[in-house]
Amino acid sequence: MTGFDYAARMDRARRELAEREVDVLLVSIGSDLPYLTGYTAMPLERLTMAVIPRDGETVLVVPELEAPRVEAMPDVFRIQPWGETEDPIAIVAALVGPAQVAMIGDHTWSSFLLALQAALSDTVFASARPLTESLRLIKEPAEVDLLRRAGASADTVAGLLAAETFAGRTELEMSRTVGALLESNGTDVAGFAIVASGPNGASPHHEPGDRVIGEGDAIVIDFGGKVGGYCSDTTRMFHVGEPSPRYHEVHEVVLAAQRAGIAAVRPGATAASIDAAARAVIQAAGYGRYFIHRTGHGIGLDGHEDPYIVAGNERPLEPGMAFSIEPGIYLPGEFGVRIEDIVVCTDEGSERMNRSPRHVVIVH
Amino acid sequence: MTGFDYAARMDRARRELAEREVDVLLVSIGSDLPYLTGYTAMPLERLTMAVIPRDGETVLVVPELEAPRVEAMPDVFRIQPWGETEDPIAIVAALVGPAQVAMIGDHTWSSFLLALQAALSDTVFASARPLTESLRLIKEPAEVDLLRRAGASADTVAGLLAAETFAGRTELEMSRTVGALLESNGTDVAGFAIVASGPNGASPHHEPGDRVIGEGDAIVIDFGGKVGGYCSDTTRMFHVGEPSPRYHEVHEVVLAAQRAGIAAVRPGATAASIDAAARAVIQAAGYGRYFIHRTGHGIGLDGHEDPYIVAGNERPLEPGMAFSIEPGIYLPGEFGVRIEDIVVCTDEGSERMNRSPRHVVIVH
Repeated sequence: MTGFDYAARMDRARRELAEREVDVLLVSIGSDLPYLTGYTAMPLERLTMAVIPRDGETVLVVPELEAPRVEAMPDVFRIQPWGETEDPIAIVAALVGPAQVAMIGDHTWSSFLLALQAALSDTVFASARPLTESLRLIKEPAEVDLLRRAGASADTVAGLLAAETFAGRTELEMSRTVGALLESNGTDVAGFAIVASGPNGASPHHEPGDRVIGEGDAIVIDFGGKVGGYCSDTTRMFHVGEPSPRYHEVHEVVLAAQRAGIAAVRPGATAASIDAAARAVIQAAGYGRYFIHRTGHGIGLDGHEDPYIVAGNERPLEPGMAFSIEPGIYLPGEFGVRIEDIVVCTDEGSERMNRSPRHVVIVH
Repeated sequence: MTGFDYAARMDRARRELAEREVDVLLVSIGSDLPYLTGYTAMPLERLTMAVIPRDGETVLVVPELEAPRVEAMPDVFRIQPWGETEDPIAIVAALVGPAQVAMIGDHTWSSFLLALQAALSDTVFASARPLTESLRLIKEPAEVDLLRRAGASADTVAGLLAAETFAGRTELEMSRTVGALLESNGTDVAGFAIVASGPNGASPHHEPGDRVIGEGDAIVIDFGGKVGGYCSDTTRMFHVGEPSPRYHEVHEVVLAAQRAGIAAVRPGATAASIDAAARAVIQAAGYGRYFIHRTGHGIGLDGHEDPYIVAGNERPLEPGMAFSIEPGIYLPGEFGVRIEDIVVCTDEGSERMNRSPRHVVIVH
């Protein structure tokens, strides 16, 4: 990732540390590290960890064999490689020093945290999530631009899927097709492609499998990838042959709920109110108990991040927040319907990152 | 994953808990959970956690919307779904109860561990790795069979790559080609494909990028995926046009080191001795300081797991242990060479899971 002002982001992190009276921020795998340094750690057993003191130099502790991957950024951090027979926990502990208050990145493996707690027995550890969430929550214009490009690539794929033959192919084959289409249409790295056909559509996080898609199947396709590090995530509905009146009814309810959720987005509205707006439509239609998940999740460098669009989250939306609106109705043993767009809160309301048609697409 | 005796594995886990005087094992994302239950948790922000008491019933705490993914196994665990507005930490804490000694899975997010430590302030937490390592270290015959099948699929791809045109294509294109070939030749899910050309080959964990491969490039291709949940991982060398005498010399040294490492594998030999056997060959040839990583890593459900083939690891090998032998020489600014097979320790010595030719493959 280039084009971002990492030094400015690091300064913001330090100001947050000072405000929270925290001495040091420890960041390992996940999206906080690339957000702050441009470098993504490999999610493996060799520890990579940025030690970011409130006052003083940031040090990126990195396995020696991965040091050539790191793009040097002398104004943001220095690199400290460790060899295969060294102990990276001891190196980090020495950099932290005694008796500190430390925040540690969300996705850091628990085994590393336990080892650091043992090595730094007088240090108090807390989750860095409140801090990193606050840094990453409002997207810069360049970040929104990448979300827009990621969304446009996914929309292109949604359009191309209408020309695919579904009947006779397995969910897994279709899932791989979606991945290949993403990577040949502007997405850097395909991330995931849920293809849930017929009764499998009633499982929101269905793992695409050997089920052969056939005539009369409704198919949920929920997919995304990354452009410049930023995620896409959209869900569209396909149907082999003409859907039943019952399918059409459910689809219309979900689409109305999704539109209602999007229409409710504006600065000052709470995350919970967006969930409530979408849910009310489904409840009014009598399907409330079949909408078994929250309405959405934030998105950015992570596919799921703050803000979560869920009952109880009273956070007011602000311009630059990016999140999904994805209500669904799941009828066990029958089918499921979900429709999902990414939206960004704007001064006036919202901008959709996804523009492909939301009606059910009839396929062969 | 089917065909494994999960009840027997759970019994072994409980015996290990008793021997270590640990009250409860907590397992979340990563490979320990599918090893014990057949179920793989989604690596997302909604907590999935198996609570495995030394005495008593195992409970799989799982997000409600993912409960339909879980294959019920009444003799192994029961399912406790949690709804979107419930607190999964409180649910797990109630299942654990007060004042316990708990072990927690390696890859569990640090934020979940910190929340559990806060909710269970009288409980002592330790890393589950010594326990889960001991469970997973010796592969059952059915596990070795899956490693064999995964290796055979990767070998097929290594053979097919010889017919590809390299010159004029980017590393990223070639990396995607490797992934597609894996999935069309017996691998369930492509995992990774490092394609490091020319001077990029000197970076062992190079991220395939926009570099266009050209005449005279040596190319390291290190790739793998999963079959039935078990990983493949092999590295072969390609070269556009005839290599230089210097390239041939380095390749021969690496191949001799890799053969020496494999030849040293037998029950009772230490992991460190395998590393030493391979390293001695490279050192004797005068390239010791260019072999900047350990000789190998264990493999199974995880791409990297115990045993690590590294100086200092005095663990004696036993039949059923599976690991890579992958020495390399990395010449900054010039090229790199790495050759990698997966081997399984047998009663007599070892069995290679990879059989594709290890000479440099000349391509266009």
